[in-house]
Amino acid sequence: YNLIIKRGALARAAQLAHLNRRVMVVSDSGVPRKMVDAMLRQCPQGHCFIFPQGEASKTPEVGRALLSQLLQAGFDRHDAIVALGGGVVSDVAGYAAAGYMRGIEWLQFPTTTTAQMDACLGGKVALNLDGVKNIVGTLHHPRLVVADPNALKSLPQRHFTAGLAEALKVALLGDGDLFGLLETGNIAENLERILFLALQYKKNLVEGDVLDQGPRRLLNFGHTIGYGLEAAGRGALLHGECVALGMLPMIESRALLRRTRAVMKKLGLPLKHHMDPDTVLRYIALGKNREDTRYTVARVKALGQGYLETVDFDELALLVKGE
Amino acid sequence: YNLIIKRGALARAAQLAHLNRRVMVVSDSGVPRKMVDAMLRQCPQGHCFIFPQGEASKTPEVGRALLSQLLQAGFDRHDAIVALGGGVVSDVAGYAAAGYMRGIEWLQFPTTTTAQMDACLGGKVALNLDGVKNIVGTLHHPRLVVADPNALKSLPQRHFTAGLAEALKVALLGDGDLFGLLETGNIAENLERILFLALQYKKNLVEGDVLDQGPRRLLNFGHTIGYGLEAAGRGALLHGECVALGMLPMIESRALLRRTRAVMKKLGLPLKHHMDPDTVLRYIALGKNREDTRYTVARVKALGQGYLETVDFDELALLVKGE
Repeated sequence: YNLIIKRGALARAAQLAHLNRRVMVVSDSGVPRKMVDAMLRQCPQGHCFIFPQGEASKTPEVGRALLSQLLQAGFDRHDAIVALGGGVVSDVAGYAAAGYMRGIEWLQFPTTTTAQMDACLGGKVALNLDGVKNIVGTLHHPRLVVADPNALKSLPQRHFTAGLAEALKVALLGDGDLFGLLETGNIAENLERILFLALQYKKNLVEGDVLDQGPRRLLNFGHTIGYGLEAAGRGALLHGECVALGMLPMIESRALLRRTRAVMKKLGLPLKHHMDPDTVLRYIALGKNREDTRYTVARVKALGQGYLETVDFDELALLVKGE
Repeated sequence: YNLIIKRGALARAAQLAHLNRRVMVVSDSGVPRKMVDAMLRQCPQGHCFIFPQGEASKTPEVGRALLSQLLQAGFDRHDAIVALGGGVVSDVAGYAAAGYMRGIEWLQFPTTTTAQMDACLGGKVALNLDGVKNIVGTLHHPRLVVADPNALKSLPQRHFTAGLAEALKVALLGDGDLFGLLETGNIAENLERILFLALQYKKNLVEGDVLDQGPRRLLNFGHTIGYGLEAAGRGALLHGECVALGMLPMIESRALLRRTRAVMKKLGLPLKHHMDPDTVLRYIALGKNREDTRYTVARVKALGQGYLETVDFDELALLVKGE
């Protein structure tokens, strides 16, 4: 995997990536315009496609509009898409790149904590359909991922914090050192190290399990229930907040659960939600991780001891309801 | 490759394929309704999605409608799509299967000569966008291909004949025996043999070149110019007719050109078109086989001696204009 973690990397994108061809910079309205302009200045044949920020843009319609724009701008197989933004931008850009002329290169510049910590590895790209998340997608690995921690400075605090849930996820699943770093609460000064550890863990799982049939599914830790919370909340909670809340019922050690809550509190992540459990469960049932009525979920026995388990819907319901 | 060529296979689909799960039978208005019903009777949990016949249906909008229907019918990763029809049906069904939940199985039952001879191997699936053919697509191999020559009996004669162009293509590229069979003009009685030889040649090329970067591109023989004719003709000529017309300028031996014209005449394929060459060229230039201004085209030196050559647009223009 071609991955660069470096402060200031965005400003030197043209030295790191092949941008001297037709490049479509895909971004959303939440990304500072000057960041988009800085990227465009480095693309001699640059175009841009910017859509409204938010999950509601992750649709086939927006994907189609991007494809039309690629076509109108005369993009061919050798040209590239640059995804400059968070997870939604990567999904829209990556899915379009996968389909256009049966696949062109895309370069991923994640600009949110969540995207840098998590979404930028694995090659999974997907769109939502009829309100169901990630139901249409494929695997299309970016040619290069460049994570610039400086980009996170422009994020609202709540968004910055939510993304740390993905680091917490990795720490709980398999990295006690990372958990220790998060426990200190000194995030800003340890950001590159946290990013490095989170991505290293994910990289190992992804490379060992390209088809996502085995241990890579550990990365779904917090996501089964989190997915339901996110869908039911309709934007009330951020993805990372939902993942954090979704992990709690999956931690089996009471001591670890206490420590995890303390970390979440220190980071500024929510410890509770006020969603109706039945609504949450209904969205989970609609979701893509269903295999008939059984769900493969990731659980954590003790710090660093994540494992996969298949449960039926009733067991999952008990976990969601906290019984 | 899991490929079955057998008369009467459609009527026994359930014995050949795993249909005892949720199955979406995708077809178009050109496929006899009783053929669709015969398939549905073999699917205990069958659904169907039928769209208007023709290239104009090969769009992201139709693909999206199919995806919505899969979602509404509760399809999961283990369910399947059955493509029952010609190339357009396969493209819509296969592209939806590739994307739904990041890929579910699809089973291909080609019912046209073109689809049986050609389109049913290789796993290439694509949609048109803004009038440009196959500009959005991917590779997603069907789990099983079942070609039933009996299905061709219901085709209008012109459609049956057009599909033979794909067999003629294979014969010219690399199979003198197949050319001989076509030269006899006794198509009906040799149909299974013709089908077998055409698919065998294609299968060898496809399996040896999964990524379509090498010899498999020989299969584009007739398609570079044919593509332009089809786009410019807006339905006036069938795909196979365009391929046949597109092969003629690519045959270098005058003797073979004469024999090929004789075969085409005997089969009932057109020997001429009345399209404006500049319009044809404009559509070719818009198409996906462009790599900057150079085109990799397949040509035939003598019977069975196909080869690939890269030409620039001006050379291609001379070929289109017959100069």
